[in-house]
Amino acid sequence: MIVKALRWQGDADGHLELVDQCLLPGKFERLRCEDVESLYQAIRRLAVRGAPAIGVAAGFGMALAMQNLDKADSPGQGVEALCRAGQYLKSSRPTAVNLAWAVDRVAAKAQRFTADNPQAAIEQLKQVVFAEASQICTEDERMCLAIGRNGREFILDGMGVLTHCNAGALATAGQGTALSVMFEAHKQGKRFRVFADETRPLLQGARLTAWELQQAGIDVTILCDNMAGWLMKQGKVDIVITGADRIAANGDAANKIGTYSLSVLARRHGAAFYIAAPSSTFDLSIKSGDEIPIEQRDGDELRYFNGRQTAPENVSAYNPAFDVTPAENITAVITEHGIIEKPDTARIAAHLAR
Amino acid sequence: MIVKALRWQGDADGHLELVDQCLLPGKFERLRCEDVESLYQAIRRLAVRGAPAIGVAAGFGMALAMQNLDKADSPGQGVEALCRAGQYLKSSRPTAVNLAWAVDRVAAKAQRFTADNPQAAIEQLKQVVFAEASQICTEDERMCLAIGRNGREFILDGMGVLTHCNAGALATAGQGTALSVMFEAHKQGKRFRVFADETRPLLQGARLTAWELQQAGIDVTILCDNMAGWLMKQGKVDIVITGADRIAANGDAANKIGTYSLSVLARRHGAAFYIAAPSSTFDLSIKSGDEIPIEQRDGDELRYFNGRQTAPENVSAYNPAFDVTPAENITAVITEHGIIEKPDTARIAAHLAR
Repeated sequence: MIVKALRWQGDADGHLELVDQCLLPGKFERLRCEDVESLYQAIRRLAVRGAPAIGVAAGFGMALAMQNLDKADSPGQGVEALCRAGQYLKSSRPTAVNLAWAVDRVAAKAQRFTADNPQAAIEQLKQVVFAEASQICTEDERMCLAIGRNGREFILDGMGVLTHCNAGALATAGQGTALSVMFEAHKQGKRFRVFADETRPLLQGARLTAWELQQAGIDVTILCDNMAGWLMKQGKVDIVITGADRIAANGDAANKIGTYSLSVLARRHGAAFYIAAPSSTFDLSIKSGDEIPIEQRDGDELRYFNGRQTAPENVSAYNPAFDVTPAENITAVITEHGIIEKPDTARIAAHLAR
Repeated sequence: MIVKALRWQGDADGHLELVDQCLLPGKFERLRCEDVESLYQAIRRLAVRGAPAIGVAAGFGMALAMQNLDKADSPGQGVEALCRAGQYLKSSRPTAVNLAWAVDRVAAKAQRFTADNPQAAIEQLKQVVFAEASQICTEDERMCLAIGRNGREFILDGMGVLTHCNAGALATAGQGTALSVMFEAHKQGKRFRVFADETRPLLQGARLTAWELQQAGIDVTILCDNMAGWLMKQGKVDIVITGADRIAANGDAANKIGTYSLSVLARRHGAAFYIAAPSSTFDLSIKSGDEIPIEQRDGDELRYFNGRQTAPENVSAYNPAFDVTPAENITAVITEHGIIEKPDTARIAAHLAR
């Protein structure tokens, strides 16, 4: 069973259910969000995380915002309330690009509808908002499935597949990106073994990826990040598949810290290295990875774990959130449109122009 | 200040003081061991760890065993008591080779003395035992210092130096092996920056290495193991220095898991890779690294941290304690006798034959 990060229950008057990812892997619980406030809190405390999942959740948050309006309110008042809710939702994680994108998309749709139909009833606007939120969700689900289907032939019976961080169903509204490839290969009846890097410092691999694969009945083994090279040396890794946060025009790909090292180790050991990501991950305004800014996170993520001090107080800590894998280390990028083998500026432009 | 893992206080009737490494880095406390039982408990609960440090502590444990004897006891009774204490100490960590070696060395010395001097007083035997234990400690201190002095010229002003796990004073009776090189370069007034891999799963780098370097006034920054490659890509690492647990006749070196990946990454990025280890680390009965057995440790080290579940219950875990760095990835081995550049079977044999 592939566990979805979120699902809407009912019609436009329904509610959103989220897997509370803060409780995983120890406890599986669905969180019911019936208003904007509870969704805001869920996003803020990372009960839902992963760029696409947050975007879809926020889109549905706009639908929740419409449920409190009075039947007598004008569409203009509806749009106003929607924009307030949107601002509030955006403030839950100010740097989440997908969140802002989804909120703005729904708001723009509502504004257009209101401009075109100034006499419409508030109930009609509510339906329009709900339809747009649902559309964002459906698009994400289709995108995930297409990536999985496009990539599944890279996984052969008996292979060892290594992944890093969590590019799974829990990060999207669908069945993920890198993990979608594994889910689709599994549906084909192929037998293979997945190795999931625990992914320090926040352990998304051990906590989330391993849990997802286990739920789906796929053979999964966790390991510390520093064991991946030795595992490859034993000949146990045939391919590496990860997601990506942003890909430059030339194919250099930013992803969770540690991905770059994996790409070097994979190359050294003759393992293929795939990136699975939606075409929206490409940022053609960025020529190469050198221009991708790398977020530095708080050193306390390394100095403390679960309230316990794991390093000297105030010791300096190097804690980049991402690194950049050069295109030359990437065997192929798998998108919802197909495969970009040996990615470079020309091949990427051609792929996206289709 | 270089903090020593252990020190004997007083004469043959004195006691052993250990830094309680279970409390580091949050709390620094010296543990007083006045009898064999308290030392046994300290070794067992890892208050003292690191092969050489355990060996020296156990040697002193034999001296503690002599303190309870009656003046009227015969040397034969003394040796008997000593052997009982030795067996007990060995059982505190049955696989610790240095522990058994030190216990046996002191016991053998006492047996020889008793055989040669059957009429000696028990007080004389006590002095012999104490002298032998002290000798083991002194040899270890000298070895550490010599390694540091032999390696210090590899560190130049302004360099970035990366290390993995803990090959420091806390692991020996002296000032460590890999860290001794840094301590000696620091004493020369050189300024350099050390990057300490946190070293999953047990975090010896973050907990111990960072603490030791900070105490010594050396500029240290911790990082997750998966960040080392990206750090090298930024040009911030000039040399890597680690310890070793066992080195085969051809120079293949077993060390803490993650060392192998570092050696591959160092080579890819043009950083020199040094192993600092006493000549006793060479095991010439082993031709190459392929013959070195790799201990697999309990997967719960990955599934739990500080009582908190960090992965699905019962998920498979790959948890080798060590990996093997091939000689071709090692720029040089630094021993107490000097340097073995480009280590291979011939150069190692020549070095050890001196």
